[in-house]
Amino acid sequence: MYELGVVYRNIQRADSATADALAALGSATVHEAMGRVGLLKPYMRPIFPGAQVSGTAVTVLLHPGDNWMMHVVAEQIQPGDIVVAAITAECTDGYFGDLLATSFQARGARALVIDAGVRDVKTLKEMNFPVWSKAISSKGTIKATIGSVNIPVVCAGMLVTPGDVVVADDDGVVCVPREKAAATLEAARKREANEGEKRDKLASGVLGLDMYKMREPLAAAGLKYID
Amino acid sequence: MYELGVVYRNIQRADSATADALAALGSATVHEAMGRVGLLKPYMRPIFPGAQVSGTAVTVLLHPGDNWMMHVVAEQIQPGDIVVAAITAECTDGYFGDLLATSFQARGARALVIDAGVRDVKTLKEMNFPVWSKAISSKGTIKATIGSVNIPVVCAGMLVTPGDVVVADDDGVVCVPREKAAATLEAARKREANEGEKRDKLASGVLGLDMYKMREPLAAAGLKYID
Amino acid sequence: MYELGVVYRNIQRADSATADALAALGSATVHEAMGRVGLLKPYMRPIFPGAQVSGTAVTVLLHPGDNWMMHVVAEQIQPGDIVVAAITAECTDGYFGDLLATSFQARGARALVIDAGVRDVKTLKEMNFPVWSKAISSKGTIKATIGSVNIPVVCAGMLVTPGDVVVADDDGVVCVPREKAAATLEAARKREANEGEKRDKLASGVLGLDMYKMREPLAAAGLKYID
Amino acid sequence: MYELGVVYRNIQRADSATADALAALGSATVHEAMGRVGLLKPYMRPIFPGAQVSGTAVTVLLHPGDNWMMHVVAEQIQPGDIVVAAITAECTDGYFGDLLATSFQARGARALVIDAGVRDVKTLKEMNFPVWSKAISSKGTIKATIGSVNIPVVCAGMLVTPGDVVVADDDGVVCVPREKAAATLEAARKREANEGEKRDKLASGVLGLDMYKMREPLAAAGLKYID
Amino acid sequence: MYELGVVYRNIQRADSATADALAALGSATVHEAMGRVGLLKPYMRPIFPGAQVSGTAVTVLLHPGDNWMMHVVAEQIQPGDIVVAAITAECTDGYFGDLLATSFQARGARALVIDAGVRDVKTLKEMNFPVWSKAISSKGTIKATIGSVNIPVVCAGMLVTPGDVVVADDDGVVCVPREKAAATLEAARKREANEGEKRDKLASGVLGLDMYKMREPLAAAGLKYID
Amino acid sequence: MYELGVVYRNIQRADSATADALAALGSATVHEAMGRVGLLKPYMRPIFPGAQVSGTAVTVLLHPGDNWMMHVVAEQIQPGDIVVAAITAECTDGYFGDLLATSFQARGARALVIDAGVRDVKTLKEMNFPVWSKAISSKGTIKATIGSVNIPVVCAGMLVTPGDVVVADDDGVVCVPREKAAATLEAARKREANEGEKRDKLASGVLGLDMYKMREPLAAAGLKYID
Repeated sequence: MYELGVVYRNIQRADSATADALAALGSATVHEAMGRVGLLKPYMRPIFPGAQVSGTAVTVLLHPGDNWMMHVVAEQIQPGDIVVAAITAECTDGYFGDLLATSFQARGARALVIDAGVRDVKTLKEMNFPVWSKAISSKGTIKATIGSVNIPVVCAGMLVTPGDVVVADDDGVVCVPREKAAATLEAARKREANEGEKRDKLASGVLGLDMYKMREPLAAAGLKYID
Repeated sequence: MYELGVVYRNIQRADSATADALAALGSATVHEAMGRVGLLKPYMRPIFPGAQVSGTAVTVLLHPGDNWMMHVVAEQIQPGDIVVAAITAECTDGYFGDLLATSFQARGARALVIDAGVRDVKTLKEMNFPVWSKAISSKGTIKATIGSVNIPVVCAGMLVTPGDVVVADDDGVVCVPREKAAATLEAARKREANEGEKRDKLASGVLGLDMYKMREPLAAAGLKYID
Repeated sequence: MYELGVVYRNIQRADSATADALAALGSATVHEAMGRVGLLKPYMRPIFPGAQVSGTAVTVLLHPGDNWMMHVVAEQIQPGDIVVAAITAECTDGYFGDLLATSFQARGARALVIDAGVRDVKTLKEMNFPVWSKAISSKGTIKATIGSVNIPVVCAGMLVTPGDVVVADDDGVVCVPREKAAATLEAARKREANEGEKRDKLASGVLGLDMYKMREPLAAAGLKYID
Repeated sequence: MYELGVVYRNIQRADSATADALAALGSATVHEAMGRVGLLKPYMRPIFPGAQVSGTAVTVLLHPGDNWMMHVVAEQIQPGDIVVAAITAECTDGYFGDLLATSFQARGARALVIDAGVRDVKTLKEMNFPVWSKAISSKGTIKATIGSVNIPVVCAGMLVTPGDVVVADDDGVVCVPREKAAATLEAARKREANEGEKRDKLASGVLGLDMYKMREPLAAAGLKYID
Repeated sequence: MYELGVVYRNIQRADSATADALAALGSATVHEAMGRVGLLKPYMRPIFPGAQVSGTAVTVLLHPGDNWMMHVVAEQIQPGDIVVAAITAECTDGYFGDLLATSFQARGARALVIDAGVRDVKTLKEMNFPVWSKAISSKGTIKATIGSVNIPVVCAGMLVTPGDVVVADDDGVVCVPREKAAATLEAARKREANEGEKRDKLASGVLGLDMYKMREPLAAAGLKYID
Repeated sequence: MYELGVVYRNIQRADSATADALAALGSATVHEAMGRVGLLKPYMRPIFPGAQVSGTAVTVLLHPGDNWMMHVVAEQIQPGDIVVAAITAECTDGYFGDLLATSFQARGARALVIDAGVRDVKTLKEMNFPVWSKAISSKGTIKATIGSVNIPVVCAGMLVTPGDVVVADDDGVVCVPREKAAATLEAARKREANEGEKRDKLASGVLGLDMYKMREPLAAAGLKYID
């Protein structure tokens, strides 16, 4: 499916205010707001805990064991972007370390999401450059084959189109299509609006069974209580 | 990314002569002819050995543990199609058995490619209905939530757009974009054209080192022989 | 949870006529008839295709890399039994080969279900002694530590109590509690009774959508067709 | 094996003083004290490091991708309980987040042990509500099917009966049957009693070889030293 | 650890009569005869069932996604050899297909053992060229980087030195060091010598408990029978 | 391949100044300096973040579920050593806890690298005794079978010879053969020498494309820019 050897320089990014605002909602709420789709597979984990970001996707397609295109994608980064890296086959090599992170950060990238491995993770943490990856590995890569930049890619099981919004935190990584970003933000905010009230009720000992009026449908579904 | 709750009835299928002809080339040759892209992850395995098929993709998006949409996609099958089923989260449940296979076969489907499990595999083999799946499992599914039919889906790590050509055999499953089907067929045939001659040479004891003139580039790359 | 170092000689087996009759229904139908519970994890695979058996469970708990108790359980086998072997930790060693199979078969065992590895699989196939296992491995085991026989065990994620009925085929392995065996057999037969009629309808081109009257509930769930 | 659609309201919990006291011993010592059984599979990991708890098990059986019963089990929690959640098939979805944690905490639960995924992990850490899980995932769940509460369940390969004691820390999760809780506590304390003395000896440079008098049995087993 | 870019042309192969004779014993017996060491990890599976071979190892070290050295090793094959291929990182790509198999077979190779993927498996079966591999995959490889031939390699967790004997069948793959081949053959034959007699006894219903005189040591270990 | 039941007391360790100096370079740089070989599989992870060590390898071969030889290897530790533990089959049991760590630390060991599990990880962190392992598990082990000490072992896919240098940090674990330690240190230092300058350039916004003069070779490889 992939078009190889091309770099798209002009992509249409999601509205930056919307893209920026989604971080605060978090990946779980955003995922729910989209109707429970958009989530990358849960093997994608942050290399250090606590980061919570959103931004517009620039994508890169790499070959196994070859990080040449990482330098190509660096040039296409604009402030507020998150780089999303897909590989044409399964690979855990360390495609990305502190030098590339320095370059990405200088270009304004907020994070890297990569369906492979990274290294120099201690330094990346000190630089506060968050990465969500499938692996951590010292294994280096070569620079011999060309992939593509800013084509739609499948990363950890999810299609990411350049310009989409990526939301990532300790719970995982969600991709919001550009054209759904505004509606998703609104839905996510609505979802969160009454969470505080719910939390207070639950904290006071009210049960979800009562708060959500579940007793009747549970009985209708056949649930029996036995003393 | 996924649009939920929709069934696209009119999709543009790849030219059927082209789609049919690709089976004979096999997944490995077709994958090479496309520039080594298009392959679904190798965990996708045939439920019985020996089947080699190609056809046009109709796609279905399912929820974990819920096969309701399988009945919806059945109606959209045309003779020569291969059903490609994706799930919104990882799942190994048995979404498909002999009754659905009977229905799919009656509609003209040639195979199922599913990123989950199937069951009744002994009967499916007797029916000669090939399936490439991630798992075999007796685990049944419910019919409670709706997904979509004939939207682009990510199946086993690969984007499949309705109407694309799917080629599957004992080596795996490849997706050929509709618009590249003709060029891929031509490239694959060219690739295969001189394989007979090569095979004869190798069978006679000629080495690939000589046939492909690799000795010089290997030496240039630094290879040393030690006696 | 496990009681170690004990062999229960007197267990209450499920009615043998019922236990025998469940094989013909197959693991998928039996699993459905129980309300979609009772299935061992799908990593349990037959070492050769085509076997379809049922029988009463005698259980054995083994330690990693130690098959001593396999000889102890052999004595407790009665004709019509299936041995269910659990291990106290994850292990893929080959606990069972042609000699033990000869002994089990001589005692009347119909099959082995083991959450670990087996070996001599070519010979086991020639002997027609079916095994469902997690792995195939030449790795031998020692005889140094004692486990238990005929205590309730967890095998591949499922609790199996001695005397329960085990049903296994190419789709997987299901455990039917002794006290539910008769009701399950009846439910499974009922389930299968009208499958022939359904199959004929589907084969004639009738859609499941119509046969199961799904169009209305799908529309109610929000499914939209787009031309 | 599982009885579906039932909630047992009256379970017999292990003695609370015993249940409480086991936390201090830790999962490794408790596991040894029981004869090296009772451990849940090591893929069960804490969502944040440092928590060390014990408590009485209330159990819940859930279906894949469906967390409805989490609200049902909440009502059955008593102060000092640990909720143990099993799923009828493999699933990594995020069944549990900050709202449910608020409710569980309000009811007196000390922790959750779940053979699936959880989300809102940053907030859970802030709330100091520990969870041991198989995965972390933003993936939400539906509320459509009923399971059971307070039946015996298999969680991460281990049978847990309601009222058993669960001990969990950074090393893993152990289940102590209710009727063995007192004896296990005593055995664990005995085990720990002389650990301080051993530690001092080892710290002073004494070898385990000498402290445990292993040189002779090692030689008897055939160990040879080569200079 | 690996020396890169070298091809050792003169290796000392195990005695060919010994190497040939080990096939008949099978991997499980040979593994036992060596004291339960030498086994490659059990994820190494034959691409078709029934093959049982032994031969002398020629080794090749490859980089991920690059099969260039396969052509280099072909030249070093002598009749009776088995090629053992290791990769410097985890990879499932299809390094080997029918053309290379034709070349290997023409040179006298008996099999390939590869810690990665192969393709054209249907043709390989027709050619009766057995392969033990970690994966089957259509994914092709490039020819860009050099590894080594006939250096000691780690394949599927086991060290294989050129000239060692490899024994492979449906149960797995074992490596016998050259200098231990003769002793291993003798030990394996001794092991097998009295298997026929044992098998007859067990088939007649004699228990291993009695044949191996296990009742007393089991009782000494604390085993209790409960009626 | 393994020689069982032997303890080599006199091994030739790499020069200690060299071994000590490699820690500061880190596993990724050292791995590159060796030509991208020597890395243990990336499933080897530190039990707590931040440790960065190097030292000379003393090796131990253990059987699954049996840690007896851990006490034997303790005696062979000299200040500056790192213990490398391999297992004859896959195992996740907790072979090592705070008591053994106390002993190892008292003997001068800097770390443990083990292709299995460890426990008491909270205490190990408090002791600042770093471990790189495949798993964390409370599961205890027995002391019944003998392996070997200071023989070459395969640990996490890599051959480690006693006296080699091990370098481990948050990125992974690398093994440097003794005879290559000095050359590797020099190559690694050279590699690092101009990293500061590169980092400054990249931080100022210079692209790797320009700094490494990649534009021309990328164009030669066929890369196209599309506006």
